[in-house]
Amino acid sequence: MISQILGKVLLKSIPEFQNKIFSRSYNVPRRALMYVPGDDPKKINKSFTLDVDCIALDCEDGVAINRKVDARSTIRLFLEKPKPQKTTNYDLGVRINALDTEYWQEDLKSCLTAENLPDTVLVPKIETPETIKMFSEEINKLIKQDKKINLIIYIESAKAFINLTEICKTAQDLSKQGKFTPVSLVFGSDDFCANIGATRTEDSTEILYARQKLVLTAKAFNLQAIDMVYIKYKDLESLKLQCEQGMRMGYTGKQVIHPSQVPVVQQAFLPNENQINWAKGLLDSFRTHQKEGKGAFTYKGSMIDMPTMKQAENIVKLAKLKT
Amino acid sequence: MISQILGKVLLKSIPEFQNKIFSRSYNVPRRALMYVPGDDPKKINKSFTLDVDCIALDCEDGVAINRKVDARSTIRLFLEKPKPQKTTNYDLGVRINALDTEYWQEDLKSCLTAENLPDTVLVPKIETPETIKMFSEEINKLIKQDKKINLIIYIESAKAFINLTEICKTAQDLSKQGKFTPVSLVFGSDDFCANIGATRTEDSTEILYARQKLVLTAKAFNLQAIDMVYIKYKDLESLKLQCEQGMRMGYTGKQVIHPSQVPVVQQAFLPNENQINWAKGLLDSFRTHQKEGKGAFTYKGSMIDMPTMKQAENIVKLAKLKT
Amino acid sequence: MISQILGKVLLKSIPEFQNKIFSRSYNVPRRALMYVPGDDPKKINKSFTLDVDCIALDCEDGVAINRKVDARSTIRLFLEKPKPQKTTNYDLGVRINALDTEYWQEDLKSCLTAENLPDTVLVPKIETPETIKMFSEEINKLIKQDKKINLIIYIESAKAFINLTEICKTAQDLSKQGKFTPVSLVFGSDDFCANIGATRTEDSTEILYARQKLVLTAKAFNLQAIDMVYIKYKDLESLKLQCEQGMRMGYTGKQVIHPSQVPVVQQAFLPNENQINWAKGLLDSFRTHQKEGKGAFTYKGSMIDMPTMKQAENIVKLAKLKT
Repeated sequence: MISQILGKVLLKSIPEFQNKIFSRSYNVPRRALMYVPGDDPKKINKSFTLDVDCIALDCEDGVAINRKVDARSTIRLFLEKPKPQKTTNYDLGVRINALDTEYWQEDLKSCLTAENLPDTVLVPKIETPETIKMFSEEINKLIKQDKKINLIIYIESAKAFINLTEICKTAQDLSKQGKFTPVSLVFGSDDFCANIGATRTEDSTEILYARQKLVLTAKAFNLQAIDMVYIKYKDLESLKLQCEQGMRMGYTGKQVIHPSQVPVVQQAFLPNENQINWAKGLLDSFRTHQKEGKGAFTYKGSMIDMPTMKQAENIVKLAKLKT
Repeated sequence: MISQILGKVLLKSIPEFQNKIFSRSYNVPRRALMYVPGDDPKKINKSFTLDVDCIALDCEDGVAINRKVDARSTIRLFLEKPKPQKTTNYDLGVRINALDTEYWQEDLKSCLTAENLPDTVLVPKIETPETIKMFSEEINKLIKQDKKINLIIYIESAKAFINLTEICKTAQDLSKQGKFTPVSLVFGSDDFCANIGATRTEDSTEILYARQKLVLTAKAFNLQAIDMVYIKYKDLESLKLQCEQGMRMGYTGKQVIHPSQVPVVQQAFLPNENQINWAKGLLDSFRTHQKEGKGAFTYKGSMIDMPTMKQAENIVKLAKLKT
Repeated sequence: MISQILGKVLLKSIPEFQNKIFSRSYNVPRRALMYVPGDDPKKINKSFTLDVDCIALDCEDGVAINRKVDARSTIRLFLEKPKPQKTTNYDLGVRINALDTEYWQEDLKSCLTAENLPDTVLVPKIETPETIKMFSEEINKLIKQDKKINLIIYIESAKAFINLTEICKTAQDLSKQGKFTPVSLVFGSDDFCANIGATRTEDSTEILYARQKLVLTAKAFNLQAIDMVYIKYKDLESLKLQCEQGMRMGYTGKQVIHPSQVPVVQQAFLPNENQINWAKGLLDSFRTHQKEGKGAFTYKGSMIDMPTMKQAENIVKLAKLKT
């Protein structure tokens, strides 16, 4: 008797529906964001042989103070050559030093005046909208091409969480006329814990507020949400559990500190069979309706809008990455 | 020796005291908010026979696209007749379509120009203060009587949570001169999960941030907080557990998708014996003090103000609903 | 191979590093904030014999309405005498009545015009930035000396949590020219639960959002975060567990309602051996670098800035309190 009213609600309980937005704002998936020290050509070359979504050539925490200049010039040399091809599309980024250091402007200048732009700049320790403005002004000066670079924003302190909405708004506003596009928020949980004096147990309940505030805010601004590092890099089973926990909260990817973590993470953040079937069916339905000249339409009981269409496309794209 | 200093603190640990605010802003209790598809006269008639606090005649998710006009006219017919009497007071509302659809204005017009106004309009997918303004302007045009209608606000996306305080402030401000009174926030958890890409486990820890932010914000604006739907409508034991979990967080009611859920939900959200005794004692004490010409007074160690008085009245009112 | 990139990250997993900020903003540690009823000279005298970081002579909840004047004058008498010496430094404060009562101005006047100022004024039930302004104006009028008093802010309602950032900003701004310095936020969990209608189970998951929002906001404004009261004062084992839970979230201290709770709380909020060794090593390293004329330097893989130096100093100071 009440099957009609239950229809939509029950549908929503099916995982593929709940997760349809899984890949929102994925132009490039960034399931695994892997750090590679910028001063180590061997590791950089190695990273190009890996099946990893997102490589961050690091000028910041992975590089000692007395190696900062080396990192900068090593990365520059790599950017003078064309971006190495891999069997799947991937994101090649540079993590510069924070904007309160003496390094960041040289880091930026060095990588943005090379023969090839990196796809993405990763900016650590953003705490205020003003930091975004500083970054925006510098990058608009440096990029001469008619191109935009992706911006990945690190949130790693109490102050950053207080200002989180304003940071995202400012990035969104300045990107409209600027040379960059904000694409992801990263939860810098280690610095965050140090900053507020927190200590995590295995399920990280101690920082749940911050971890869920980040994912909610990311989604409100159509950004990917990239979860914390799992430190014990030999314990792949626990890594998997933490991936799944983050994914259930809405995270779309995770930071990775060791090559062995990559396949576990990338598998965990793939859409599952249910999600893939949902997306493929939706795209089929869309094509049929287009032929019949119909605009809005429903699929499995839901009204379909353009964001949902894009999500379906992204799920199908993501699914093709599946090994 | 320390009994004096412990006095008040210990008192607060007693459940009846902690829960005294249980029913804040209850003019009408809305322990169970039950959806009934607006295009189904049989189900609507059935709902009037049930002992349920709050009936939402649905134009939105419970109604298929090609039945939207039927729902509107069916609801209109019911509003042409006097509101059916039940043994207890209840709230009769209409859930219109969201303000970014082509339906909402006709939905509103149809139900607000009928012979009898519904008690309440339920507005889904409110994301910004601007949506409240649009609603306010429309409703002020439509209601000719010297009456106010109740507004129930649905919060169902990341963006809505970012704007939650502003949404409530705007509703509160515009209601002062307007034809509506905001009374409740509803946590639209299914749409929210789809929106941020979250998947819930049984205890819903994955969306704890949003669920608790909603109840806190509701209480800051003196609104009822209505918890998420429990999907598995045959599992009444788990429903009860989820009711109790929400009630411990401060929720005052829950959305209901099946008649069998109503008694479980309404029982779970009733004040218990301790709460009732607390409230009755307070009202007795108030009458005594009034006779003696005293204004402010203390009861069980606490200074009593008017909001507390109203809470006590509401608990006693609620307790009378107890079957 | 990846030891270099792992270096810093692994370091951060070591508790002493994660907790290095443990004592940020400690000029005086306030691990245990103990309430003593202001109208009870015997208990006040007793409190001066205890090894407790922070004594709050209470005019508010620990004092009955008809004893408010007694409390005020009793506290005044104590402030006419020099602050009693103890073997360790401690904070002597007065908790006045809330700013929406008829008592607070007399409370303030009485304690701020005595021969000796208290170290700190504790202000309950702050809900808006306006309350901070009222307090600021009053205190600037009353303190004639060229001295500042510490301000401890109580957050105990939904409305206060909505306004939390603005409350802290206003306190910070007004303190620059004013006669007070904000030093701590206190989570008034009992009033908060009553206000939003919440009921806590043993692990307090029901109010996790508020509890973690408070500690995050405190740290963003460089304030101590003081955790909720543990009611069952005879159960010291459960008290210890709740202390540790709060400390893992970043809390720096806890409210105490019974002398027997003090040693448990103060022990739990002490830095551990690892933290102490980290801090001592850092201070040694700092002295060495100072002699060599070097400014910024790294220690155990981290760049050391002045806040970190101060944290190390505070940990060493705190460690000396260890019994």
